Order: sequence, then structure tokens, then C-alpha cells
Amino acid sequence: MNYIMPKTLPGFMELNPYDQIQFNKMKKIISDTYESYGFWPLDTPVIEYSDVLLAKAGGETEKQIYRFNKGDNDLSLRFDLTVPLAKYVAQRYNDLPFPFKRYQIGKVYRGERPQKGRFREFYQCDIDVIGDEILSLQYDVEMPSIIYDIFKKMNIGDFVIKINNRKILNGFFSSLQLKDSYVEILRIIDKIDKIGEIETRNCLNDVINDEKKLDSIMDFIRITGTNEEKILKLKEFNITNDNFTNGICELEYVIDSMKKMGVASENYEIDLTIARGLDYYTGTVYETFLKDHPNIGSICSGGRYDNLAEYYTEKRLPGVGISIGLTRLFYQLKEANIIKSTDNSCADIMILPMDENCYSYVYNINSILRNNGFKTSVCFTNNKLKSKIRYADKCHVKYVIIIGEDEIQNNSITIKNMETGQQEMSKLNDIFNIVKNN
Amino acid sequence: MNYIMPKTLPGFMELNPYDQIQFNKMKKIISDTYESYGFWPLDTPVIEYSDVLLAKAGGETEKQIYRFNKGDNDLSLRFDLTVPLAKYVAQRYNDLPFPFKRYQIGKVYRGERPQKGRFREFYQCDIDVIGDEILSLQYDVEMPSIIYDIFKKMNIGDFVIKINNRKILNGFFSSLQLKDSYVEILRIIDKIDKIGEIETRNCLNDVINDEKKLDSIMDFIRITGTNEEKILKLKEFNITNDNFTNGICELEYVIDSMKKMGVASENYEIDLTIARGLDYYTGTVYETFLKDHPNIGSICSGGRYDNLAEYYTEKRLPGVGISIGLTRLFYQLKEANIIKSTDNSCADIMILPMDENCYSYVYNINSILRNNGFKTSVCFTNNKLKSKIRYADKCHVKYVIIIGEDEIQNNSITIKNMETGQQEMSKLNDIFNIVKNN
Repeated sequence: MNYIMPKTLPGFMELNPYDQIQFNKMKKIISDTYESYGFWPLDTPVIEYSDVLLAKAGGETEKQIYRFNKGDNDLSLRFDLTVPLAKYVAQRYNDLPFPFKRYQIGKVYRGERPQKGRFREFYQCDIDVIGDEILSLQYDVEMPSIIYDIFKKMNIGDFVIKINNRKILNGFFSSLQLKDSYVEILRIIDKIDKIGEIETRNCLNDVINDEKKLDSIMDFIRITGTNEEKILKLKEFNITNDNFTNGICELEYVIDSMKKMGVASENYEIDLTIARGLDYYTGTVYETFLKDHPNIGSICSGGRYDNLAEYYTEKRLPGVGISIGLTRLFYQLKEANIIKSTDNSCADIMILPMDENCYSYVYNINSILRNNGFKTSVCFTNNKLKSKIRYADKCHVKYVIIIGEDEIQNNSITIKNMETGQQEMSKLNDIFNIVKNN
Repeated sequence: MNYIMPKTLPGFMELNPYDQIQFNKMKKIISDTYESYGFWPLDTPVIEYSDVLLAKAGGETEKQIYRFNKGDNDLSLRFDLTVPLAKYVAQRYNDLPFPFKRYQIGKVYRGERPQKGRFREFYQCDIDVIGDEILSLQYDVEMPSIIYDIFKKMNIGDFVIKINNRKILNGFFSSLQLKDSYVEILRIIDKIDKIGEIETRNCLNDVINDEKKLDSIMDFIRITGTNEEKILKLKEFNITNDNFTNGICELEYVIDSMKKMGVASENYEIDLTIARGLDYYTGTVYETFLKDHPNIGSICSGGRYDNLAEYYTEKRLPGVGISIGLTRLFYQLKEANIIKSTDNSCADIMILPMDENCYSYVYNINSILRNNGFKTSVCFTNNKLKSKIRYADKCHVKYVIIIGEDEIQNNSITIKNMETGQQEMSKLNDIFNIVKNN
């Protein structure tokens, strides 16, 4: 027989079972945290009408899209979760409770050129709060506190949430009469972490060519100190531009409120060089970095926007949201050897019956363990104990319970710790303490 | 501005937020139960190479598939989770622990003609156990006990798991020298619940045209009684065919073991007319029905097969699995008004601060509640209490906590039960008892 090679597409992450367990743990931390803040879960289709999905898109996005015809329909796979949200909210405007807080964790598709760390199918984990005409700035405060909770629980090292406000940038450049070169300037500033201050100034010089303005921009970028000091220095710029003033006000409010919310001060800071998607965000913007691995780039980003669904409805729907690109994050964490936990088994406990005569006893024990919240697996193979132990080992379980004639006669179990090799006959109740204390 | 109509494709389920909560609860019961039995989670790509995905497919499947080119690649969206599993296991044969127990819950795609209750994108929730060359019959026992756990927890009414063994059918028809018409006969028998006994005999007559054989088949189909009685009557058929005899043995073993496992006797029964996918299953087969809604059809099906990945590898990989088509099940349960729970809010508790001065106090309470496992949402809108109560109501929350100046001064909270309208000032700790006791 001719076999077909069982291969997976490049750029599509397909994990081994052990890594999948770890991936799912991270995903669960994200969804549990989103839910704990009262966000509605959404689950929109992967396929949409192309005209709906591409209402706004253009350029790179449109080139990367998976688009095809089925019957008479021009269809596309979603490339993010924001456009489907815009569609959803516009469609159901009359039925939704506003502010509408939703989370969605799902796969999106971009046919990028495959390269290390880039994926064509990847998970986005999004939350957004959408207001009807208005949306309290308080939701801009809630976003980073959710990010904070998530990365604290993930335990992947020190991180910092960098916060800025686009109104400050907009106002500042307007006051310098640099509105026309604004997009270009922001693009240069956005790269300062990569290219450094001197190169930034050189690049800016090509665009601006005005020493005084250049000095002013470099002063602005170089603002340092605590968050409170940065706010103070911003105010001292003394620019009379409403946007600038409002931006400072908003930023100050967000920073102050985060403190009140109990977000640890080492985990967030004002960074005036953060700009984010140039034509989309209009207020608060966030990026999140691992302090020991800045090269990974931002692991969670987002911000405030003025109007979610302008292509679908005349309703003005301001929003604020953040997104974690989990597939890429997981890949990077593995590459950087940051996920160190060896806790990646399918089960907490594996039960090894010596032979078929033990099954009734095993059923009973198994059901007690499961009812007490343990994940268990029973090895029902008809081979020797040694092979069964090898199976348990390959399944990475930490504890096995061996059941044979002796155990049944003594109404007991034998517990083996697979890490230490320690093994002893015990009463069933002992397993609860042993597993829970480890 | 010309707006684009925000529409969703027909045949694609997109739920309102309240239904999505209920859908997710069902999905969670399934995944939690699968995990409690020690199944590895898998998450394979939605897109695969067409030649890999269609190695076995043909006929209807191939017509329904979403297939397209991207660059030089001929790609398809998966139409089930079994083919990707076969690919995965063949690919990673050397690295997997066998028996390999995996679950996968994911969306699959079939471009069927859209009609009521049929979906083009739908969730399958699959478990399979794959053996290397051999696989203990004990795993055939575990499957229905998992189904049992799931539908008990779902609380969607009385159900019965119908069990049969394909070897009994194969052996029986071989002994009647009806092997050639076998597929056709099974197809007719499979419909007996829909068309009745008389029509079944008529249809069979067209194929067989032998009164004696026809009588024998009708006797076989009509076997009634308890499971034990059915096994006894099967044995009394006294057919000397190995397949038949082995099938009875296996069926008896599965039924006996389920009893020992504690599956309630009213929830499973032998049904000799159950055949399932005609060319795939080779041993035990299962179908599950809601007793009060037989018209919904089988809500969970599966069985034993000889060789999972014959198109990809020479390794013989026998398996047994079951699948729940969750999208269709959810749709049918809603239609039949079986999901009655009104417990479909984004949060357990919503906090309503009277004004901005209460925020610090609110942050504190909110964080205590979340740390105690509650899902909370804070209404940060700047409007009157009445509007906030209306928002809480639209979010279907059962309890709101109101915080104003009085509450802060008394270091207390006001708890309002949204269902009864009852409202009283309490200490924070009271909320734990009130919410948990309801």
C-alpha cells in the first residue's frame, strides 16, 4: 500500500501532548481571569463574508488573508477578533448590555511568510469593553489590572506594563506644527527601544530638519523618573493644547487608579515612546514586556479607540481592549526556556491494576479519587507491572497507585512516588494528603 | 457614509451572550469530565494539506469540504477530528505513550446545504483511546461510563446509552450467507426506530427474498428483555460463527463491567439494531438517546475500530472513541426547551458604586470577592443608580452590591437580590453565605 505522508502545514503550531498541557494551563489562566472580571464569553465563526471582514482592511492584511469561494460566496478566515466583535456589536446593538464587556479566545489566520516564531494560525486572547456613545475612563484602569493578574499567575518572571496616552503624543506634535509628519515621527519613536537614542534623532532629523523642534522631541522622549515625576515634567512642558492637557489628565488618572487598585508599582510605568497601531488607538495605550527578556517584544498590548464599528453602523461605540497573542507567547517562552514546570501530565494519579481480578476494586478507588477532584488514568493493558510503570513514566504522572491481591485483602493501596521511587502500602485516605502536600 | 451590513453566514452558529454562557457550561462539563479520566488534550490545526485530510474521504465528505489554494498549496478545513488524530498519531508514533488517550474539542467544517438544525461550522467533542497493535476491551467499558458521567452532570433529562457489537451483526449475517447484502441490510435495520418493524421487514424482503432468513433476522431484531436476557437469547441462537461468538463475549463483558463500574442500569441497554458508520466500526458501538426526546436522535455516538491510521502508516493502531456534536446538541436542547436554567450571567455579583468617591472602597471589596472565587463586574458608568440597576438586570446578575457614602462610613455593603428585590445593608462576609446558599 502507498502511504500518504502525515504532515502538518508549516506555520501551524501543533504541540506534543506534554506541551499542550502547559499551553492549556496558560490559556486557562487567561480565560479564568477574564471571567473573574465579569466579561461575557463570545465565540464567533472562523469564516465570515469577505466584504464584512475586509470592510476596513487593506494593504498587508488583505494580502495575508485566507480567502476563497464556496458556492456563490466570497469567504475569508478571520485575521483578528476585533473585526468580528465590531460586526457582532453592530448586529446586536439593541440587545446587548452596554458597557459590553466581552472576551474571546480563538484562532485567527494570517498567511504570512513562515519564519521562526511567526504563525499562520494563532490564538488571540482578547478582552474589550465597548461603550454606547461614552465609556468611562475607569475601564482604561481595569485593563492593566487584568493584565497584571494574568502575568502574576502565569509566573513567567518579572514584567512591566508600559502605559502612554495617544492624546499626549497627538497634542505634543500638533503644538510643534508637525501634524503632517506625525505618523512618520511616531513610527520612528516607536522603535527607540530597538535603535537607540542617537539613531532615533538621526532618523527624526530626516523628517523634521529643525534643530529646535528636534531638541524638543528628544527632551520629550527623554522624560525620566517615577510615574509621578513624569506626569509633573509633562505638565511643565507648558503646552497649551487641549489634546495634550487632556492626555496628561487621563494618564494621571489611570496611573493613580492602578495604584489604588493595588497593582504593584514595579509592574507598570509610563513610557512616552509607546504609540501602538498608528491609525486606530486614540487614548490610553499599553504594551507589556518581560523585564529579563525584552527581545521577546510586547507580550500583551492594547488601548483605547474612539469607534469600534464605524464601517457597520452610525452608532458611536468607543472601546478599550487588550490582546495576548498566546501562540507566539508560548513559543517564545519555550524558546527562552522560561516555562520550567515539569508538571505536564495527563493525570494526577495513575492506577495500575496487577490483573483483571482487581478491576472491581480499581473502579471503586478510581471513582472515589475522581469525585475528590483528582484527574486519574487507569492502565488497563494486559502486561507486566514493569511495563505498566514504564507507561506511567512516559505519561509523566507523579503518583501511581498499584492494586494487587495483597492490597485488596488489606483494603489498602500501594502508592509509588515516581520521582523519588518511594513506595508504600497505605490506606486510600492517605493519597489525599500525599498528593495535595506535594 | 455607506455602511456594510454586519451579517453572519447561514449555517454558522453565533450565540447571544446569555446562550454563549450556557453553551460554555456544557462544553466545560465535557472537557472537565474528559480530563478527569486522564485524557491528553490535543489541538490540531483547522487547516491541513488536502491530500492528508482527504486520504480516506470520498463521496459526500469530499463534496462538502471547504477546499482552496493558498500560494502553491492545496488546503482544506478539517471535517472531523478523527482524521487529524490519525495524522497526529502516525506522525508521532515513536513519542506517544500507548494506549494513547486523547480528547479534542474543536470546530469542524462541512459545507452542507443549510437547513434547520444543520451547521456548517460545529463543535465536535471527541475522545479516543489508541492502542499499539492491541487495545484492551476495558477501554470499551470506559467510554460509556464517561458518557454517563457527562450527561448526568448536564442534567438534561433521562438518557439511555445503547450498546451493540458489530461482530455479532457480522457473524449473524455471515451465518445466513448474507454477507453480500450485509451493508444494505444493516442500513435498513439501522432505521427501524424511524420506520417500524413492518416496513423494516418489507424493505428487507426486497433485498433478501427468503422467508426463512427473513424470519431469522426478524427474530434477531426482536430480541427483548433485560441485558442479561438478551445475552442469553443471543447465545441460544446457537450459531457456530467465531465472529458471532466473540461479539457476544465482548458485549457481555462490556455490559457486566459497566454494572461493576456503577453505571445505573436504567441508563444503558443492549440494542441489536444499532450499527453505526458501516465501513468503520468493527466491535463495540454506542449511541445515546434522550428518553423523552427520541426525535433528537443520537446525542453521542462512537465505537471500536480496527485501524486508525491505515492511510498514513503500516502500524496497526486499533482504537475506541466517542463523539458529542455539541453545536447540534445545544441547538436541539434549546429548540426542545430542555435547557431551563436561567443562570446565564457574566458575573455572580455586580458592584454598583454610587459615585467616583467610592472607587477605592470598591476596588478593595472587588478584589476580596474575586480572591474568593466569585466572578464580579463593576459598573463604572457615570449615571444614576436606577440606570445602573437596569444594567445589572440586563446582565442577568442575581446579586448586586451597592456602595455609597453610608456603606463606606459603616464599613459595610448593601446587598440586593435582583430576583426578589430584597435589599439590606450587611457586612462584607455575609455575601459569601448569601450567594453560596442560593
